[in-house]
Amino acid sequence: MELRMELGNRSYPILLERGCLGRLLSHLDLGRKVLLVTDEGVPNAYVRRVFAQCPEGYAAVLPQGEASKSLDCFGALLSRMLELGFGREDAVLALGGGVVGDLAGFVAASYMRGVDFINCPTTTLAQVDSSIGGKVAVNLSGAKNIAGAFYQPIFVAVDPDALSTLPARHYAAGLAEAVKAGLIGDPALFGLFEDKEIESSLLEILRRSLLVKKALVERDEQEAGPRAALNFGHTLGHAIESLEGLGGLYHGECVALGMLPMIEDGALRVRTERVYEALGLPRRIRYDGAAVHQFLKKDKKASAGYVTLVRVPALGQYRLDRVPLSDLVAIVGEGIG
Amino acid sequence: MELRMELGNRSYPILLERGCLGRLLSHLDLGRKVLLVTDEGVPNAYVRRVFAQCPEGYAAVLPQGEASKSLDCFGALLSRMLELGFGREDAVLALGGGVVGDLAGFVAASYMRGVDFINCPTTTLAQVDSSIGGKVAVNLSGAKNIAGAFYQPIFVAVDPDALSTLPARHYAAGLAEAVKAGLIGDPALFGLFEDKEIESSLLEILRRSLLVKKALVERDEQEAGPRAALNFGHTLGHAIESLEGLGGLYHGECVALGMLPMIEDGALRVRTERVYEALGLPRRIRYDGAAVHQFLKKDKKASAGYVTLVRVPALGQYRLDRVPLSDLVAIVGEGIG
Repeated sequence: MELRMELGNRSYPILLERGCLGRLLSHLDLGRKVLLVTDEGVPNAYVRRVFAQCPEGYAAVLPQGEASKSLDCFGALLSRMLELGFGREDAVLALGGGVVGDLAGFVAASYMRGVDFINCPTTTLAQVDSSIGGKVAVNLSGAKNIAGAFYQPIFVAVDPDALSTLPARHYAAGLAEAVKAGLIGDPALFGLFEDKEIESSLLEILRRSLLVKKALVERDEQEAGPRAALNFGHTLGHAIESLEGLGGLYHGECVALGMLPMIEDGALRVRTERVYEALGLPRRIRYDGAAVHQFLKKDKKASAGYVTLVRVPALGQYRLDRVPLSDLVAIVGEGIG
Repeated sequence: MELRMELGNRSYPILLERGCLGRLLSHLDLGRKVLLVTDEGVPNAYVRRVFAQCPEGYAAVLPQGEASKSLDCFGALLSRMLELGFGREDAVLALGGGVVGDLAGFVAASYMRGVDFINCPTTTLAQVDSSIGGKVAVNLSGAKNIAGAFYQPIFVAVDPDALSTLPARHYAAGLAEAVKAGLIGDPALFGLFEDKEIESSLLEILRRSLLVKKALVERDEQEAGPRAALNFGHTLGHAIESLEGLGGLYHGECVALGMLPMIEDGALRVRTERVYEALGLPRRIRYDGAAVHQFLKKDKKASAGYVTLVRVPALGQYRLDRVPLSDLVAIVGEGIG
């Protein structure tokens, strides 16, 4: 099936279809120079499948992990494109998870002030969330997404078959963003997780998650208002993720943890914990509250002594709260769960 | 006087007024963190004048020259902002010429996916051309403007008094862009140069140049069509500028040279050469035609074996010509004039 992100002259199709990675040519002009950006965690078979459709393709295979989302990698990819003679009509294609998509997207946004960006997400996290909406960025000095842009892709190909090779923990972590979409905007989506037959409803989970995100991005492309709801769980989650010595939690796991204190309805919090349990997501963590608080003061969503928290008063609803940083001490506490 | 760039929700005022650098507070909220980016060539008096209006200002003074328009400087400025705790509601202010504006603008475009950008051009080149329109970028491996964005400032303050301290050659070189504006779109502006009383008509030269550019940017913000007219003289000019061993010509001087072969009306070409003579701009150059041709093949305006040249058939008119790269050999020749 094909969804469509409606953003005026920056609109684009989102193809959600099993096996669509092998059928990009039916939808896209790949008869030009294409820089295929991927990482070592993406199975070779997928890379070959996409590469076979790019007669003038060049592959850039990055080390797996957040460290590749750097200004150094950004510069290296731009230099490579320049050496290869990429022009304005050429394209960058991301094949991978959020790291690959964010980096490749910022490269596409910046090369000659913008070339076509095609995103082929291969992780649950990227398929339900990060591949659409146009937020691209790299990290700086350990702080996430400090240099970036709002730059929409021209096409997103979501192939659920690509998830079959994902390690179980990685797979589950990404689904935390789908649980998020359910909590802030789609009770039926949340219900799919409570039914626990996730495999059989995967396509519907992807579709519903994308629809929640699509609606918020269409209302507020550059996050001046309601789009911030998508940060539900992320303010605290980013802090947990960034603090070292916590045992290497995944982004989705941190978001899962970060959502719990922001659910105001006690019964819904319990239901959410049960969903986490079924998915194998963490429900408890202890941390250094002072360090988390210190980190939140530097968060890019913080301003003038305040931070905007997303809270869920009831299933399918959200509220943006502007909270003084001083109040955060009590909210953060010394752990979750 | 105040002009206004009309670009929907990206519109902004362009203040053109003697002494306006000292009156920014009447127009702008500077009561926030402001990174003032400038270079060693900008007189200290101007920096102090602007800095005095920024209670939370931080100055970044770069070495003068094109070498500062690098990814390294880009990263260093972003890191500095992060260390200083800049948030989304803070701002970057450029005080200087095209190099400072292009670099600072790309930093503003990228920091946390975009903060307010204020441009205070202090050179003729920046005042008549580069400070408006939203083209920001850094160079890469010696190739100009390879990494960048279309990112509009929120305010441009053009203070002609700042030009009084500019070295004569630098001053004249920038006016080449005003001659360009006259040639492609405003016969009366060109006439001001033929009258030769440039000092007395400076404000009018600035105003008319800005109006020519404003009209083209408003029609075509991201250079999909007519905005390319502003590249008149730049395709060949960039090549001349980039090739080493040519005695260090300024950007404006190279543009002046690059325009000459693109003026189709012989009489107008002679009139233009007379204007150059009065301004002290170069009218002749010998170069290695093969090297220039090689460079043009890599130009970011080249695609699929073609390059788009801007030609002026008659005063105040332009035409965009898609020319095969193979035809360029004859056009480039071994020199100009």
